[in-house]
Amino acid sequence: MIPTLEWTSEGVRFLDQTRLPLEETYVLATSYQQVADVITTMVVRGAPAIGVSAAMGVALGVERSRAATLAELKPEFETICDTLAATRPTAVNLFWAIARMRERFTKLAAQLEMTVKGVAAGLIEEARLMYDEDIAACRTLGANGAELMPEAGGVLTHCNAGALATCGYGTALGVIRAAVEQGHSLHVYADETRPFLQGARLTAWELMHDGIPTTVLCDNMAASLMRQGKIKAVVVGADRIAANGDVANKIGTYGVAVLAKEHGIPFYVAAPWSTIDLATAHGDDIPIEQRAAIEVTHHAGKQLTPHNVGIENPAFDVTPAKYVTAIITERGVLRAPYPESLSELENAAVQA
Amino acid sequence: MIPTLEWTSEGVRFLDQTRLPLEETYVLATSYQQVADVITTMVVRGAPAIGVSAAMGVALGVERSRAATLAELKPEFETICDTLAATRPTAVNLFWAIARMRERFTKLAAQLEMTVKGVAAGLIEEARLMYDEDIAACRTLGANGAELMPEAGGVLTHCNAGALATCGYGTALGVIRAAVEQGHSLHVYADETRPFLQGARLTAWELMHDGIPTTVLCDNMAASLMRQGKIKAVVVGADRIAANGDVANKIGTYGVAVLAKEHGIPFYVAAPWSTIDLATAHGDDIPIEQRAAIEVTHHAGKQLTPHNVGIENPAFDVTPAKYVTAIITERGVLRAPYPESLSELENAAVQA
Repeated sequence: MIPTLEWTSEGVRFLDQTRLPLEETYVLATSYQQVADVITTMVVRGAPAIGVSAAMGVALGVERSRAATLAELKPEFETICDTLAATRPTAVNLFWAIARMRERFTKLAAQLEMTVKGVAAGLIEEARLMYDEDIAACRTLGANGAELMPEAGGVLTHCNAGALATCGYGTALGVIRAAVEQGHSLHVYADETRPFLQGARLTAWELMHDGIPTTVLCDNMAASLMRQGKIKAVVVGADRIAANGDVANKIGTYGVAVLAKEHGIPFYVAAPWSTIDLATAHGDDIPIEQRAAIEVTHHAGKQLTPHNVGIENPAFDVTPAKYVTAIITERGVLRAPYPESLSELENAAVQA
Repeated sequence: MIPTLEWTSEGVRFLDQTRLPLEETYVLATSYQQVADVITTMVVRGAPAIGVSAAMGVALGVERSRAATLAELKPEFETICDTLAATRPTAVNLFWAIARMRERFTKLAAQLEMTVKGVAAGLIEEARLMYDEDIAACRTLGANGAELMPEAGGVLTHCNAGALATCGYGTALGVIRAAVEQGHSLHVYADETRPFLQGARLTAWELMHDGIPTTVLCDNMAASLMRQGKIKAVVVGADRIAANGDVANKIGTYGVAVLAKEHGIPFYVAAPWSTIDLATAHGDDIPIEQRAAIEVTHHAGKQLTPHNVGIENPAFDVTPAKYVTAIITERGVLRAPYPESLSELENAAVQA
């Protein structure tokens, strides 16, 4: 399996995604601040992966704390959580993971004779459980989505919603992996995904690693391939799904969705339930991270654009629910109307 | 004015567009083979510019010929024309320009007591006339299109259909320049235009040169800006327009056209009449150049993708006429149905 991130006795180990595909190197974060840096600089990225990374960062911060008592630990714990929450604004999994760690902290701290070491052990356990759950969720949602994939032909994906965006297996690429495991004969078309090139670098790398036929294209070529009939389905991941079914995902996803609709191609979103944010009513309420201009103006240290030209660099966009054929989760495949199908599955889980 | 290409006594001088925006260097072609290389390697690019470049290449080849007689010159002239015609397949201006040089050659060679020197002088005159006509056509079509631009607000363009794609002034950017000259307060959004980055490098450079406010965006960001209402109109150039109004232009144009339609934004194509190819019935009959994978896999000498991954690199796509709000030419602004409006203006010109 691709070792995107891992809890180790020395700290949290991350596969450095800024150096893929040509270099397979690792970063060992030995403090929660380093985990925060790793998330901010996109050494690790992908909504589910940064959720679990943040959880591990919280656990690491508490494990390395010098607090002698729970009373001393408490404010430090708040700082740790706030630092990790301030890394990236769009993916809700980050906030979901931190909230879950806070909840576990509160329960642990309420126990009689609980020690700082005991809290740390409990938080490490929780983070590792979230890691295992993420892999299980991806496998289940992959299997749920596999039947939506064509028996044979081209499937387009944007960005990287793969093993590298999760703790392993992937969401959109989990669906593709599961379909291939079931015998579908798929050819993946991977949008290169400017400016960070997650498709060209990461999706291509991990699919070739698994022997799944892959072609990289510039983002602006997808429309032409659709018109030529080369794309039978689109499957992408998500950074946050609002209560009305609107989907925030990597910049460019919305354009792909419009093109898919125009060509009568199904557009699927694959995400674990932790990506669904029923507290956010509409997609337009989702905060969209703006990243530094240098990601667009430079590549490999070389400047592409004239000095001082204006630059847009939103990291995400919002695809309105009307473009989404189905949302594939570990709890099942949801169809429009999404306000109903989302709250139905949420309530079923709460009652279960 | 931006010196895209120029006939000089030493040869044809080209502004090296592969080195813009950071280096303003020139390439002097002193043989027709060098002119062919300059076109193939995209030192000069843009349909109108490569048409006039090819014409100048033909003139240069004949000027430098060692043929003593017209009988000796004739087969050499054929080789010159064939070499230049084999450089790039999609832009019809290239073939239009060479056909015009052939026609002039035939007329010159039919004259009594014509010499090789005399033919060369006539061909140089023809090529320089085409240069002047190109600038005049761009100014006229610019003025024709200016009134279609919003009074104020964002206009999106893709690739570079500017002074650098013509002998000066530009087609799509000619429309924008004319509108700005007339007092429109425009802000240009320039798609970076992967893989060759004509937008990020060339459009941004020449608009900043003219003081027109410009923002560069990754191609996959245009949909999001449209949804936010930042784009009031789209204007692009063309490499070939078929008799039914279908438009071949830089890869990614078709996607922009679909997005414009979805958002109710007018989509304009600006091109001189030499880009219109009434001999080609449908856009799908236009040959689409496939360029080398290395343009997608590498940047600034650095490899972006895993070794041996599949790559798509079509240089152009076809936008069906139904997405085109109007075609702006020096003969006037054409509207659908294009088969009628195109043949009407063609016949009017023939009769005039």
